[in-house]
Amino acid sequence: MIVGVPKERFPGETRVALVPAALAKLRKSGLDILIEAGAGAASGYPDAAYVAEGAEIVGARDVLYDRAEIILRVRTGGAEPTQAADELALLRAGQRLIGMMEPLGEAQFVQAIAERGVEAFALELIPRISRAQSMDVLSSMATLAGYKAVLLAANNLQKIYPLMMTAAGTLTAARVLVVGVGVAGLQAIATSRRLGAIVEAYDIRPAVKEQVQSLGAKFVELELEAQRAESEGGYAQAQGEAFYQRQRQLMAEVVARNDVVMTTASVPGKAPPTLITAEMVHGMAPGSIIVDLAAERGGNCALTQPGQTVEVNGVKIMGPVNLPATVPFHASQMYSRNIATFLLHLLKDERDADGPTTDEIVLETRVTQGGQVVHPRLSVEMAD
Amino acid sequence: MIVGVPKERFPGETRVALVPAALAKLRKSGLDILIEAGAGAASGYPDAAYVAEGAEIVGARDVLYDRAEIILRVRTGGAEPTQAADELALLRAGQRLIGMMEPLGEAQFVQAIAERGVEAFALELIPRISRAQSMDVLSSMATLAGYKAVLLAANNLQKIYPLMMTAAGTLTAARVLVVGVGVAGLQAIATSRRLGAIVEAYDIRPAVKEQVQSLGAKFVELELEAQRAESEGGYAQAQGEAFYQRQRQLMAEVVARNDVVMTTASVPGKAPPTLITAEMVHGMAPGSIIVDLAAERGGNCALTQPGQTVEVNGVKIMGPVNLPATVPFHASQMYSRNIATFLLHLLKDERDADGPTTDEIVLETRVTQGGQVVHPRLSVEMAD
Repeated sequence: MIVGVPKERFPGETRVALVPAALAKLRKSGLDILIEAGAGAASGYPDAAYVAEGAEIVGARDVLYDRAEIILRVRTGGAEPTQAADELALLRAGQRLIGMMEPLGEAQFVQAIAERGVEAFALELIPRISRAQSMDVLSSMATLAGYKAVLLAANNLQKIYPLMMTAAGTLTAARVLVVGVGVAGLQAIATSRRLGAIVEAYDIRPAVKEQVQSLGAKFVELELEAQRAESEGGYAQAQGEAFYQRQRQLMAEVVARNDVVMTTASVPGKAPPTLITAEMVHGMAPGSIIVDLAAERGGNCALTQPGQTVEVNGVKIMGPVNLPATVPFHASQMYSRNIATFLLHLLKDERDADGPTTDEIVLETRVTQGGQVVHPRLSVEMAD
Repeated sequence: MIVGVPKERFPGETRVALVPAALAKLRKSGLDILIEAGAGAASGYPDAAYVAEGAEIVGARDVLYDRAEIILRVRTGGAEPTQAADELALLRAGQRLIGMMEPLGEAQFVQAIAERGVEAFALELIPRISRAQSMDVLSSMATLAGYKAVLLAANNLQKIYPLMMTAAGTLTAARVLVVGVGVAGLQAIATSRRLGAIVEAYDIRPAVKEQVQSLGAKFVELELEAQRAESEGGYAQAQGEAFYQRQRQLMAEVVARNDVVMTTASVPGKAPPTLITAEMVHGMAPGSIIVDLAAERGGNCALTQPGQTVEVNGVKIMGPVNLPATVPFHASQMYSRNIATFLLHLLKDERDADGPTTDEIVLETRVTQGGQVVHPRLSVEMAD
């Protein structure tokens, strides 16, 4: 079976779906690998490294799509409709497409793939169960986003992070607040602590308190009652507006005492909740920084502009998008491990299956098949 | 006595010579403090904070220079001759000027100040003796430069710094080489280690080996013999060209195995030695980074462009200038402590002195007096 890895086309995308180190295992499973020329260049993996691992480099993108039975991508579709159309034109019926495709946000693209007869798997939908951990692209990329967001904050703050006792006096440590303690939040806490900041963290799920404390941070407890804060999948659950209003009131005081506020709250398939209002920003000291990790989907701060840094009353509000692409060497390595593990799992499941699969991982990630959108969550949304 | 603190005018300069917290001690010694309006704004110290500490805010710069007997600056002179001329026009005979003024590089400006009859003290010349430690602006600023340079490197590297064991595999730690283990180098080592990098460091002075190791880094030993590597002031001593050539040969191998190379070697009053040649840069893997902390004076890397980032063969060479100004809150706090301590020392020395001072600190920093350039090192250079 032939697997093709095209060069990514999304603006600012530097990652590649497979790194050379991933090839040996795939080839041992009988897969032949085609790599589009230069696909790994932006992430630090030259063509020669792929060749050394037995891949074939293909110069023309259409030839690669033509020959490959399975296409592995980082991000399918595109920032503009024409990019998505370009990719659609290259795909054919019966071909398989595996990658991130924002299935809950890009319903039109998913519908178009289905009509094309492509069998597509959206890696964002990997279920959060332990045997799928090594395929979980959202977790692996969130780890890197959390790390990198701290560097952005520290690099822009007019203070240093660590406490320093010097001959020229004592410099106090910077104060950092992390709102939303998922994978990105935990890494943001850990990295801020590494750099010497005093960190506090908040999450509506009290269950994360111990994790926060084990990283040397303080867990902020607001006097609030959340209804069933954690969903079965381990994500934070959406709450009512009255809850968020009271939360904002109490949060304003916490925000005001910190130099850096990092927000990471997102609810899959929904707009992220607004946790930092304009009023809270005005309550912050000039020189403070907000890094909004939910910027890509609109942001947790009311003043966030995705992809930009805006300054309001001396407070910088940073809305970085696609942070993993800024550490593409390691991001590609992790993503590659995720997608290769998924691919081998999928092929094994097919070999073992007697009739239609009942495997949770395959069923939860398959979004199109036989000309239809087949994913239960997506089908419901499209029927609305 | 009246002390005036003008707003800094140097391009990109965000620091201020005194922070509000420094005022109490100066005022208790009988000094009145004038602050130019907005002088502390860029470093996070609003006018109101100075007023709360008993300072008077002065709107017009010329009024401040007119009233003050002592002028405290971060950087005197200017990037362009007109700026230096502007400052000269404001100064008058008998007035005192204390600040950084690049006395060994800006001989013309120093000569002009002397002719104006100003008594100037260059804080870069604070002797490296223990009782002057709390006045040592080069040390305090180098500490911050070393910290900030690591953030620049980590923020630009396509890898992450720490080792991470994740469900998506193990990410290896970044490798960092620090060349020149002075104050900036030590801080660069410490901060890189905090972030989880594997660090090695090199200096021609073997005496720093233990310091390097105590920070968890490896000390690189090249088979070289330096002649009297450390001067009496604790600075690295200039060596002959044959020495540097052999050093470069051996260094090339060390450079090639690292992801990040940070250079901090400078010799006061001289151009920094070239430690990283173009050839060594070509030997580095694409995606590697050089941060040249000696960029301001020409750099330790042959390809450095001061104030810019250039890319050669996929290697980024960063030549940041005035890094302390990028953490102005803490930089101003340290500088303020340095300059206030010096000022109080100077005034006490005068009160106590019976005839001309014999104090080493005063004699080593005073560059002009009574219409003359009086500093021994400067006088010799000007006579050349």
